[in-house]
Amino acid sequence: MTNPLRIAPLKIGLAGLGTVGTGVIQLIEENRDLIARRAGRPIEISAVTARDRTKDRGVDLSAYRWVDDMGELATAGDVDVVVELVGGSDGPALTLARETLGNNRALVTANKAMIAHHGAELGALADSKNAPLKFEAAVAGGIPVIQGLRDGAAANRIERVYGILNGTCNFILSAMERDGRDFADVLADAQSKGYAEADPSFDIDGVDAAHKLSILASLSFGSKIDFAGVEVRGIRKILAADIAQAQALGYRIRLIGFAEIDGNNGNAQIFQRVHPCLVPLSHPLANVTGATNAVVAEGNYSGRLLFQGAGAGDRPTASAVVADLVDIARKETGPAFSVPTNELESLPRASAAHRIGQTYLRMLVADRAGVLAEIAAAMRDAGLSIESLIQREITDGSALISMVTHEGHEAAIDATLKTLSGSSCLLGEPMVMHILGE
Amino acid sequence: MTNPLRIAPLKIGLAGLGTVGTGVIQLIEENRDLIARRAGRPIEISAVTARDRTKDRGVDLSAYRWVDDMGELATAGDVDVVVELVGGSDGPALTLARETLGNNRALVTANKAMIAHHGAELGALADSKNAPLKFEAAVAGGIPVIQGLRDGAAANRIERVYGILNGTCNFILSAMERDGRDFADVLADAQSKGYAEADPSFDIDGVDAAHKLSILASLSFGSKIDFAGVEVRGIRKILAADIAQAQALGYRIRLIGFAEIDGNNGNAQIFQRVHPCLVPLSHPLANVTGATNAVVAEGNYSGRLLFQGAGAGDRPTASAVVADLVDIARKETGPAFSVPTNELESLPRASAAHRIGQTYLRMLVADRAGVLAEIAAAMRDAGLSIESLIQREITDGSALISMVTHEGHEAAIDATLKTLSGSSCLLGEPMVMHILGE
Repeated sequence: MTNPLRIAPLKIGLAGLGTVGTGVIQLIEENRDLIARRAGRPIEISAVTARDRTKDRGVDLSAYRWVDDMGELATAGDVDVVVELVGGSDGPALTLARETLGNNRALVTANKAMIAHHGAELGALADSKNAPLKFEAAVAGGIPVIQGLRDGAAANRIERVYGILNGTCNFILSAMERDGRDFADVLADAQSKGYAEADPSFDIDGVDAAHKLSILASLSFGSKIDFAGVEVRGIRKILAADIAQAQALGYRIRLIGFAEIDGNNGNAQIFQRVHPCLVPLSHPLANVTGATNAVVAEGNYSGRLLFQGAGAGDRPTASAVVADLVDIARKETGPAFSVPTNELESLPRASAAHRIGQTYLRMLVADRAGVLAEIAAAMRDAGLSIESLIQREITDGSALISMVTHEGHEAAIDATLKTLSGSSCLLGEPMVMHILGE
Repeated sequence: MTNPLRIAPLKIGLAGLGTVGTGVIQLIEENRDLIARRAGRPIEISAVTARDRTKDRGVDLSAYRWVDDMGELATAGDVDVVVELVGGSDGPALTLARETLGNNRALVTANKAMIAHHGAELGALADSKNAPLKFEAAVAGGIPVIQGLRDGAAANRIERVYGILNGTCNFILSAMERDGRDFADVLADAQSKGYAEADPSFDIDGVDAAHKLSILASLSFGSKIDFAGVEVRGIRKILAADIAQAQALGYRIRLIGFAEIDGNNGNAQIFQRVHPCLVPLSHPLANVTGATNAVVAEGNYSGRLLFQGAGAGDRPTASAVVADLVDIARKETGPAFSVPTNELESLPRASAAHRIGQTYLRMLVADRAGVLAEIAAAMRDAGLSIESLIQREITDGSALISMVTHEGHEAAIDATLKTLSGSSCLLGEPMVMHILGE
């Protein structure tokens, strides 16, 4: 048997030296020999680039050629694969991706925003240039879920894919749940500890989860990525009281990215939503706490598959980046989206209105006679019935009503809220959260 | 883009038409078009074989050539891949596997017993003949865990792999837990419903889980499969009282296959055990109920990865078989055990004696003065201290003592039991179960 350490290495050009970039360097150094044995050849970093050469990153860069112009990685003679860890949906990352693939060179990226926005273009370019495009690290950090969908579940018609896709939100919701604290309080704490960004809106408003969901949906359903079609709502408006009420009713609140195919061949539609949901305690996602991510895929033969692990962090994300490099070293790469990009279907968007399920409704109301009667009448007129309801006084003159409806069309929720809109009984915007089915 | 349906198909010879075999036929027919798109070429069954041609299996076999002599599949001109679903570690399955690979032909198998016993021989043969050998369906049914370890976690040194590997045992333990019933009662029920075999010993004595564990350990650690090195104990002796006591102490009982590398390069040893364990309620495996399987792999960069899904059944297992076929159609196959079989290390077996952990001990004792003193003295002399203990009278004259020790060496448990062995205070064999760390 030929010693894999003597076979020509796979040579890497690494763009971006933040925590993930330095994690990739450390991983490739620390696990060098076992990677070479498994990949059949060594994986070596040739060149690196980042904005600031002088910054101390805690890793020795002296063995690698420093490149000032990032674009050089796309053409350099000592680079087989460009690893893009620059970030941002457009700008330098996108330019580098286009130049790399355009030059028939493999690209590995952790850039979920870029794939969500430009995956169709980049996938088609990769296909036409026969250049591998890999992005395991773009979704759910260290969890090999892209591969699980592309390869492990390859025999299945996947009908539904959903999960906990943002570690920051799950960390905040778990902490609120554990300590009974309010959102703003936990967020400030998470920011001071580095678990949340100074500008946390991408995470807590659900945009990051929506990027990931749109990628998972495309891979699962063979549809064109449709990020703009994801209905998005974040976790800012969740109260400690919501979490307590949900718990009293047998649920935990999680930010769930959910995608599903409605209908069959010919008239299939795609539904994509990132929303805080009430998850029954018996569902595996209810037990996912902290920064952990988890993805469920339901195949027509496999049944329900669950992939769970660290959703972020330098080391887990580096693990996903290097898994892609191993695939490239082994030449085990095919179309980025499992089928050729130009065969991905453009599916019409399904509307939420006809979806059927249970819903959690919370309203801050005036604490006076007739309020409950007004709400109950609005629900009755919309054909919506109540499974359970808790009302409690909050302050003098105001009360909080939390309820879970029986199964009904989402349109009935909208109709109820429309009837109540502008009513003097409501003291604030109602909170609507859907309940994840078992 | 060339229509994949016009590219030469991957032609399958299918040996064994039990529930999994017919599941494979149904899957290949039902998902034909999407498989062809994802695999880049159609996957078609050419020939089938089984013991009894006349049996009604609920699927139409008329489109496939029937072969009376199974060995013909290894040489037939219209077969690219042999799918072996005959079962049994030796005999016809092994003969077919040797002939198939020996004839430079790809082999896909769901046969855990054959891989556990003959994986080294078959892997080396596959490598030398450049013939893919794939066995995703051999471990954990429809869960793509072989691929998760081989590819998804490829960049990691895996330090530990463990999980719930036998659906029958988990079904029985969950039912005992839910209904408070005894083992024999639940087993009889499971047998009548078809969830357990008429001869259930392979499942409930832990042999099936040990087959799977030995395969997972080899893939995870790059070590030669060592099925004989798996310490095995099944679930026959678990009482309803054990489950109740465990629950009172904050645990659930699960049959856990556990493998770990002790020590580093040069003096690494392998530890493999299938045992009923107490799993803390906060651990993801505690929430795995029914026939579900789940595997945890801990990598030095990925951290803890969890793969969960249906551990058995015709449709999930067929999903795994066809995933392997898709890999072969895509030519995304490498060495069966991730590294070439002749590079797998022969690791010495680590002894359990020096392992440190908490342990659950249950003894049926004579209900008279001095018994607890005798047991406590034996534990003290072995250096073992008690974290919690419950004693309750069972019948007139006998009592059940259940306890959880503080962390200690397993050797101390052995020493305690040795001291007590033959003592008149014990009315039966003590039950020892280790506690799975968080």
